[in-house]
Amino acid sequence: MFKDISVSGDAALLTDLYQLTMLQAYVAEGMTDTAVFDLFVRRLPESRNYLVACGLQDVLDYLEGVRFGPDALAYLDAQGLFGQAFLDYLAGFRFSGEVRAVPEGTAVFANEPILEVSAPLPEAQLVETFLLNQVHFQTVVASKAARVAWAAQGRTVVDFGLRRYHGIDAGLKAARASYIAGVHATSDVLAGKLYGIPITGTMAHSYVLAHDSELDAFSRFAECYPETVLLVDTYDTLEGVRKVVELARRLGGDFHVRAIRLDSGDLAALAIGARGILDEAGLTGVGIFASGDLDEHRIATLLARGAPINGFGVGTRMGVSADAPYLNSAYKLVSYAGRGRMKLSAAKSTLPGRKQVFRTTQGGRAVGDVIALDDESTGGRPLLRPVMEAGSRLPNASPTLDEVRRHWEEERAALPPSVLCLEPLDDPYPIEIGPGLAAERDRLIRSLSG
Amino acid sequence: MFKDISVSGDAALLTDLYQLTMLQAYVAEGMTDTAVFDLFVRRLPESRNYLVACGLQDVLDYLEGVRFGPDALAYLDAQGLFGQAFLDYLAGFRFSGEVRAVPEGTAVFANEPILEVSAPLPEAQLVETFLLNQVHFQTVVASKAARVAWAAQGRTVVDFGLRRYHGIDAGLKAARASYIAGVHATSDVLAGKLYGIPITGTMAHSYVLAHDSELDAFSRFAECYPETVLLVDTYDTLEGVRKVVELARRLGGDFHVRAIRLDSGDLAALAIGARGILDEAGLTGVGIFASGDLDEHRIATLLARGAPINGFGVGTRMGVSADAPYLNSAYKLVSYAGRGRMKLSAAKSTLPGRKQVFRTTQGGRAVGDVIALDDESTGGRPLLRPVMEAGSRLPNASPTLDEVRRHWEEERAALPPSVLCLEPLDDPYPIEIGPGLAAERDRLIRSLSG
Repeated sequence: MFKDISVSGDAALLTDLYQLTMLQAYVAEGMTDTAVFDLFVRRLPESRNYLVACGLQDVLDYLEGVRFGPDALAYLDAQGLFGQAFLDYLAGFRFSGEVRAVPEGTAVFANEPILEVSAPLPEAQLVETFLLNQVHFQTVVASKAARVAWAAQGRTVVDFGLRRYHGIDAGLKAARASYIAGVHATSDVLAGKLYGIPITGTMAHSYVLAHDSELDAFSRFAECYPETVLLVDTYDTLEGVRKVVELARRLGGDFHVRAIRLDSGDLAALAIGARGILDEAGLTGVGIFASGDLDEHRIATLLARGAPINGFGVGTRMGVSADAPYLNSAYKLVSYAGRGRMKLSAAKSTLPGRKQVFRTTQGGRAVGDVIALDDESTGGRPLLRPVMEAGSRLPNASPTLDEVRRHWEEERAALPPSVLCLEPLDDPYPIEIGPGLAAERDRLIRSLSG
Repeated sequence: MFKDISVSGDAALLTDLYQLTMLQAYVAEGMTDTAVFDLFVRRLPESRNYLVACGLQDVLDYLEGVRFGPDALAYLDAQGLFGQAFLDYLAGFRFSGEVRAVPEGTAVFANEPILEVSAPLPEAQLVETFLLNQVHFQTVVASKAARVAWAAQGRTVVDFGLRRYHGIDAGLKAARASYIAGVHATSDVLAGKLYGIPITGTMAHSYVLAHDSELDAFSRFAECYPETVLLVDTYDTLEGVRKVVELARRLGGDFHVRAIRLDSGDLAALAIGARGILDEAGLTGVGIFASGDLDEHRIATLLARGAPINGFGVGTRMGVSADAPYLNSAYKLVSYAGRGRMKLSAAKSTLPGRKQVFRTTQGGRAVGDVIALDDESTGGRPLLRPVMEAGSRLPNASPTLDEVRRHWEEERAALPPSVLCLEPLDDPYPIEIGPGLAAERDRLIRSLSG
């Protein structure tokens, strides 16, 4: 039934047509020397002070497995663009190159390579589209979710957004990216199964609507799930809270409802009102969970207004990264056949050659990065690490999801507090170009312009 | 390698956990009477005057095939939330209900049901998450792409965005949704194979960078693909155009290059400059193709400035619907056991009962819609049609992709020109509530509030 996404034999077709036409030309021209491509983000959106790198595991899975199956080759043959020699080349296509990357869950900034591919030119070129598709999207979501988790100041945040994320793959991987970035659980059952993310959920308005009365619905649901969360805003929120109190009176010692959920209206005022009603009834242990069009700014405002909210369900705005649904990502050739390459297009120029990012810390806090040539020693901790050689993933390149999540926790702890703030920085985090790289860039510009 | 998206046996887990906990409660309570749910969009974003319904084919595929495989059941069992009786129920789960829907490619407006599911309550509830995930996202993209295609005023528009769409499923289905909405082709090879969308492509900057000179790159590529499109902005755009002229001089009658592509800088000024250089060289048949951060507004501005551009490559901003990456979509219980249901939550109230949308036209143009009870005769063309009965797709519910695309063409031709404009309307397209539906709503409000 999911013929459109079960792409095993077709995985290699998840690319732009021009990759394949360029490949045929490269193969015909014998241009199969080693090419180096950098995947990076040119500029950060105004509303992002940092990015959280994400997507590497899918990249490595893809590079290890990318093949052209018989169906894929037949489809390409039918396009009338490709000769038999090239189709034969594709039939034997394997990715044989090496990859260096920053670990998932690493903080990255503008122009810093998130990953670097070194491979025979056709191989490095073909994989561009898939690598960007995964790293771009997952980094978009992780970077947004990190802000949401930060705004909640340690309170529980649950991903509720599968229904409005952009398709199935987005639904699954947004849950994963959000979890890496500090979100605690997801409502997405399949993401729970595939990635081992804790799954959780409450109840929907339809459950209340389907019953003859709200109290009846609460009573029935608590019977099935004693420690559940009851949704109280289907008709009138504070009346709904009073029905929870009524249920507690009826059940006495059998009342174990963990929390109520508010999903509409003025959440801060309703949370204060609900807290008052619950406390007055002695239900001080019943928490308040809030959801409904939330994002990091709304959470921060709710907490600033003193809303007694214990946890947040966040969906759409987080997983589609509503204020910045895309990044200015790029995958650019920086070296071919041992020579640095760069593009001069207006506002899109690139940094040539194999590079490394060095991060300097003082007192446990990052104070600035230097993007330098790979062999340029500028001090600081190098962020790019080898993760794949000769087309095979290195043993250290498969951290568990919880290891990745902890890595982001450590990264976050080492970022300057100003960078973590929700508001744009007046002085962005300092990124310098190493002197060797700057000299190489200037030399290339002169040679290209001359 | 795509274990995370090959979900055949796991398809039913593409849902929110609360659907399953509610299902268990419904089954335990014997609440399996017929429920009716509407899928609709509550409010249109400010930057949308209409929506283009999309996603129905995937909904029908899913409803016909949704199953809980052994792995899925084992995972659910391990959660400690579900009893054996319910797991047995899930093992035999099939969707047995009926669906009415507006055809894909139909213009829809706020609060109009895009589809309606009638089924035993647990079945209708479980499928909410997947139905929203697909219809929401695909409608988001089709509605954006329709604006892009409209702005191009008949010029070719090609989807270039796979690399920045939100994952694999988004990459494929955004290509499909864009094609339905009037885009002409895609660069996405797998979307071409799966959906039969024409695929096309040009060349990348990396191809130019990998060669020793731009002219060499052009010459080599045109040798492989005589009727290709050459990308001229890698170093200096107008110099690049002059190299195309130089190539034409060298090749003489063997020069068949179809167009040049501009991908950066002031596209209007560069297109005018490039047109001048090409025309002066007698290359009047060589077209100009433009790309780079385009959307409907930028295309309209380019054309208003008189830019001689023959086609547009549009990616990121279209397929992520950058200005409105989500809609206020909902899937709400409107009837259970033959009784209308509605939610009163602030700003989220719903319309009860089985409904129909009637569209009135005058002189071939739509002049207004009425949302009415299903059996309320208000005149006008009914938009919702039966597409599935007893869990099986009806014969008329599988139009070809090109039929869907033509349906949108007809719909577009029948919309008032003001609705098609890019700017928000002062007077939105008129949507009325039929008198019978209004009376039923008021009656329910009184009974719920009383």
